[in-house]
Amino acid sequence: MVKPAALEKTPARRAVTTMRTSNDDQTPAPRREGAPPPFPPGCVIWLTGLSGAGKSTVARGLRDALAGQRRQAYLLDGDEVRRGLCSDLGFSAADRRENIRRVGEVARLIADAGVICVVAFISPYRADRDRVRSILPPGRFIEVFVDTPLAVCEARDPKGLYAKARAGLLADFTGISAPYEPPLQPEVALPCDRVSAAEAVGMILQRLEQLVPTPANAAARH
Amino acid sequence: MVKPAALEKTPARRAVTTMRTSNDDQTPAPRREGAPPPFPPGCVIWLTGLSGAGKSTVARGLRDALAGQRRQAYLLDGDEVRRGLCSDLGFSAADRRENIRRVGEVARLIADAGVICVVAFISPYRADRDRVRSILPPGRFIEVFVDTPLAVCEARDPKGLYAKARAGLLADFTGISAPYEPPLQPEVALPCDRVSAAEAVGMILQRLEQLVPTPANAAARH
Repeated sequence: MVKPAALEKTPARRAVTTMRTSNDDQTPAPRREGAPPPFPPGCVIWLTGLSGAGKSTVARGLRDALAGQRRQAYLLDGDEVRRGLCSDLGFSAADRRENIRRVGEVARLIADAGVICVVAFISPYRADRDRVRSILPPGRFIEVFVDTPLAVCEARDPKGLYAKARAGLLADFTGISAPYEPPLQPEVALPCDRVSAAEAVGMILQRLEQLVPTPANAAARH
Repeated sequence: MVKPAALEKTPARRAVTTMRTSNDDQTPAPRREGAPPPFPPGCVIWLTGLSGAGKSTVARGLRDALAGQRRQAYLLDGDEVRRGLCSDLGFSAADRRENIRRVGEVARLIADAGVICVVAFISPYRADRDRVRSILPPGRFIEVFVDTPLAVCEARDPKGLYAKARAGLLADFTGISAPYEPPLQPEVALPCDRVSAAEAVGMILQRLEQLVPTPANAAARH
């Protein structure tokens, strides 16, 4: 017996090639062969690091810089995902892990749509990040380690979370009472206690150009 | 006490404006004021209809036609979502509903990234479709009713599902043993028993141009 879920699947590809038999030649013309793809391929730029490391600042700067280059970029906002796609999730360890998994899946789809998807998430566990890497084509997951020392993050403490964590008011706080597993071989490592946000963005852009070069035809679109 | 989930939130926007104080003027330049956005705004084109109605055929034709116009489009594939983002879901009524909800959320994010997101899903319930409409900005949810009569779909029966449903081998089969609620005011209604796939695509493109016009600057990118 076929599972009911099959009902939501799309009809077989070869089964319905035209809507009626008298207009077989009216199907839309496919993209001209030999023509360059109209949009450069997408990828995921995944910023990981401690709370207060500067991920969001760099992510926004990166998005704006890419827009300035007329490359299509999208900043996947963690709070927005929490309100929408992951509104059914709570805050247990399992749910937080599932949250990261879904963010990875969504980032993959957005990249597959041809967009540079910028994600800024603490994402403390190596296994969770590696899982996102594994679902993307080779070279399309660009892991950026926002490598700001804990002491610097704690001194900044923009939301006062470190103080709360030290006072024992926050459980499982990354860097204090929960581990942060730094990337072993990130595509980019940013010493954000020593470089400006603009310099950090420049370092990512440089690496991006190596990994996902702007197509030659991009110039024609300027 | 702050919830642990706050740890995954991005740092406060105003708290960390630069990475170090000596380079405040090095933040990336914002997009020039007055310049047109580099990419046209995205939207969701949601094809609904019975199994065998021709949704996928029209959806693929639409994607190809948009690519031919150098508009960035993405066909959100139901099977792929099932394998990835919704791999934790089963096939109960609740899980199928949750599947549609997530597809809607993902489509919204892809549209928000500036892409025309084409979705082809039976999505038989009006409430589920209206919920997707409600999370998109006005005019950015284009509901396309692939209006092929049940008798025609059943005669096509590309996957033999109708035969199985009539034989009682499939539970809750849309149109046979489960309801299909047609859209009351779809942006486009396609009489797909009487128009070719190419004509159907043309009808959607015409409506799209009314609702989400190609920006004037798009011509400059050809």
